[in-house]
This record gives sequence, C-alpha cells and structure tokens, in this order.
Amino acid sequence: MTEKLYDDLMERSKAEPYSRLLGMEVVDVGPGSAVVRMRVNPEMANIFGSTHGGALFSLIDEAFQLACNTHGVLSVALNVSITYIAAAAAGSVLEARATEVHKTRRTSSYLCEIRERDDRKLIATAQALAYRTGKDITSP
Amino acid sequence: MTEKLYDDLMERSKAEPYSRLLGMEVVDVGPGSAVVRMRVNPEMANIFGSTHGGALFSLIDEAFQLACNTHGVLSVALNVSITYIAAAAAGSVLEARATEVHKTRRTSSYLCEIRERDDRKLIATAQALAYRTGKDITSP
Amino acid sequence: MTEKLYDDLMERSKAEPYSRLLGMEVVDVGPGSAVVRMRVNPEMANIFGSTHGGALFSLIDEAFQLACNTHGVLSVALNVSITYIAAAAAGSVLEARATEVHKTRRTSSYLCEIRERDDRKLIATAQALAYRTGKDITSP
Amino acid sequence: MTEKLYDDLMERSKAEPYSRLLGMEVVDVGPGSAVVRMRVNPEMANIFGSTHGGALFSLIDEAFQLACNTHGVLSVALNVSITYIAAAAAGSVLEARATEVHKTRRTSSYLCEIRERDDRKLIATAQALAYRTGKDITSP
Repeated sequence: MTEKLYDDLMERSKAEPYSRLLGMEVVDVGPGSAVVRMRVNPEMANIFGSTHGGALFSLIDEAFQLACNTHGVLSVALNVSITYIAAAAAGSVLEARATEVHKTRRTSSYLCEIRERDDRKLIATAQALAYRTGKDITSP
Repeated sequence: MTEKLYDDLMERSKAEPYSRLLGMEVVDVGPGSAVVRMRVNPEMANIFGSTHGGALFSLIDEAFQLACNTHGVLSVALNVSITYIAAAAAGSVLEARATEVHKTRRTSSYLCEIRERDDRKLIATAQALAYRTGKDITSP
Repeated sequence: MTEKLYDDLMERSKAEPYSRLLGMEVVDVGPGSAVVRMRVNPEMANIFGSTHGGALFSLIDEAFQLACNTHGVLSVALNVSITYIAAAAAGSVLEARATEVHKTRRTSSYLCEIRERDDRKLIATAQALAYRTGKDITSP
Repeated sequence: MTEKLYDDLMERSKAEPYSRLLGMEVVDVGPGSAVVRMRVNPEMANIFGSTHGGALFSLIDEAFQLACNTHGVLSVALNVSITYIAAAAAGSVLEARATEVHKTRRTSSYLCEIRERDDRKLIATAQALAYRTGKDITSP
C-alpha cells in the first residue's frame, strides 16, 4: 500500500510538466524522503553565466514536494529557506535530497540539500515546512 | 552612468537563458529594486496541477538577482526564505518585485513579493540576502 | 469587542514573565499588528559585548506573538527567519513592529522589523509564519 | 592552540551576561560545533504560559555564536531561520547543538536543533548563516 504510494509519486514526478522542463529525474521516494537529480545545462544560466538560483531551488523543491506527500496526505509548501553554499559546475549532475525532521497533524518539516552527484560537493541546503491539508492525495 | 547600468541589467535579463526558458519579462530595474513578470503556463505545473513552487521562486530570484546588482558590485545570493501565500491562477500574469532594505559593504538584504498583475493578489513573499563580492559587474 | 481583545493582549504582554525579564514594553496592539519596545541593557551583552542576537529576536518574537493573536484565534509560531542588519547601540531603545501580510484559515504571515526608536536606524528584519489553531484565545 | 580557543569560548560563554540571565550552561565547544543547555523556568513563560519562542531561539543562538567562532575568526550572525516543532515542557532541560555545514572565506553556515536532554524530543530546528569578518577573535 505505501510502496504503491511511493511508486505513484515517482510516476507523478516523471510526468510532471515542470520537472520535465528542467530535466529532473526522480531517483527515490520513501517514508518522508525523496531524492531527485538534474543535470546543469546551458538553459539554466543566470545573467553571469552561473547556474540560476531558481533552478537550484526548483530541484530542492521537487524533492521536498515528493517527501512531504509520502504519508498520503495532500501537503503544500508553507515556507522554504535556502542557503547557497557553492556554485554548481556546468554539465555536472546535481542530486537533491529531502529528509523529514518531524511531522504533526497539520505541519511537517524537512531538511534538504543539493550535492554534486559525483564528488558529493555541497551546493545548497534548505529548511522546508509543509502544511498538511488533511485530504487524501490519491482521491480523484 | 547608473541609468546605463540599469539598462545593461535589463538587457542581461532579456538575454538570460533561464529567464527565457520560463518566459520571464523584466519590467523595471532601478536603484536597489527590480520588477519581473511571468505568465503561468502549463509547463509550470507540479504533480497536483498547481504552479510549481520552483517556478514561483525563480521569478522572485530573478528580481532579487537584478536588484542586488544595481550598485554595480557583483553580488550573489546567500539565503532566500520564501513564504507561499496563495495559489497562482493558471494563465495569470505574475509580477515579482524585489526592494532593497539595507546594504553594508559586504552584504545587502531585500524584501520581495509576487502578486498577480491584474488583481494584485499576493502569491508569495520572500526575504533575501546577498553577498557583495566587491568585483565590478561591468568588468570583462 | 476587538478593542477589548487588543487591551487584553496588551495586559497579557505586560504581565508576561519573559517580557518582564527583558524589560519589554508593549506600545500598541491593533488588527494584525503590534509594536513593542525594549532598552538595550548590559544584561543583553553577548561574548563580544554586543547585543545578543537572542535578545533582538525575542523583541521581534514578542511583537509577532501579539500580532498573530489579534484575531482572537489562538496562534503559535511555525517559522521565523531573522536577518541582522546593524548592531544596536548600548543603552538605546529598540522598537519592534510586526505587520500582518496575509492570513488564511490555518496560517498567517508577518513582516517584522526592529529600529532604534530615536534615529529610526534599522537593526533587523524578519519574516514570520504562524499556525492558527482554531481555538479561541479568550477561553478559560 | 585550538583547544585553548575552545576553552576560551567556553569561558566567554560562562561569563556572558545574556547567557547568565537565561541560565544557559555551555557543555561543549569543538571544531565548528557547540552544545549549550538551559532549564525551562517560569521566567521564560509567554502570554499563554508556554515557553517563549525568544527563549528557545536564544539557546540556539548561543550555540550558533560559539560554533561560528571556533575557527578564531570573529564571526557575526547574518540570518537565522528557526522552525518550531514542539512545545518544551516546564522544568525540562533543553540542549541546543549547532553544527557547521560549510564555510567559505567570508561566510559559514550551520544546522542547529534543540532537544529535551532526557527524552531527546525535538523542540526546534534552525538554519544559520554567519559573516566572517576576517578579524582575530583573540585580539584585544
């Protein structure tokens, strides 16, 4: 039942328009956690030619979105605080991980990070807070 | 001279790959401030069909990036804390504004918000902090 | 009725043990807003002799606590992000203001700032998010 | 030499006026990390009789302040984002821990948490960012 839910979330992420636009690839979804990858490509460049902060945040947000919905309760982002640590190398594959810290009936909180997949270099960290609506995500 | 800098930043934003990917349009750049617009399109949908938090953040981050560079000193994001207020309607035009609160020699801070352009509905707010490298942004 | 609620919150703040410990003085409570003052005294010094970040945060948190309860619905802090702007001068009177940005049925958000009362110098800003429990604060 | 620095920071924390006001006790200072304890006492009550958010934040901020100065470079807080997880029981002993995530020449970032000492119950988490001034903290 919960395995089915994790598979369902992975399928939703694969089919998600925004995830496809940025070339994200969901790697793992488990209890209160998710891992998502993305290759830094030229379309993500900012005005100085570095990776845009919005692209990095989007990768974290995708992992957070999946992680906070793994209990089957429709959950939405309330607040995310991202700290940028290092620039992401052009062409590198980034991996974002969101890990649940705690949940109550109405809220849940997560620690997230992005690392370069190959050398595990830390790129960004985030603290994220979700509101749990109480609705079932698998409802039609 | 500063007018030339604002024009230069607007040109950089127009030519920016990431801004083009999401269909952003810079509207104004002034001393410590910037306004950027983006239409919510189907490519920005998340796994539930709402506007992805990463797309909303990206719009704020573009305004922040421009605002923090308006003094001609190359500045990069240290931390952004975003609070999501309301869902953005499909097809609506969103407007993000970043406004400088303070700057010191090495850091500067901004309050940002996204509103729907037409009805001024508040969609998200953010607090953003930049590191001022001390380098000239117009250097080759 | 609401005036009575604002007066009640001011009385609660005046009688609050923590507010008294730090010498805070509530100045105003209104719809979605509150103003609280505190004099920087030697007991607030940190390891370098500057005003402790915890004392500055506490002043903002007192204003936030009052502001988010002005609708009569028991509300508690979910997240606060504080950005430190400038050092507070020893002996100066600080004034924190919390202003409501938005509220939904279950959450409400605030922008807060501390200024020196006399010269209006900006000391810190914060973004704060409350959870609205749905309980009546005036219940026994 | 570094051991001497950690001892010096512990001594500074013990002598710190604000730490004494709240009854904090520094437990450990090491490379990029610090642990500080505090008993929840009646003076920390907020307007509803719970532990004031400012008292909880202050404990985290003390640990952060110590951790970010363990490299001997005078460092000051830029931004702290705190998420409140659970209420702290009256009379309980709280333990805050700050752990360095990364540092560059000019900034360093930390993850922090408060737990009840005895049952390890999580009370709050925080993400903190420091500015490294470049000055030596041991200079007169």
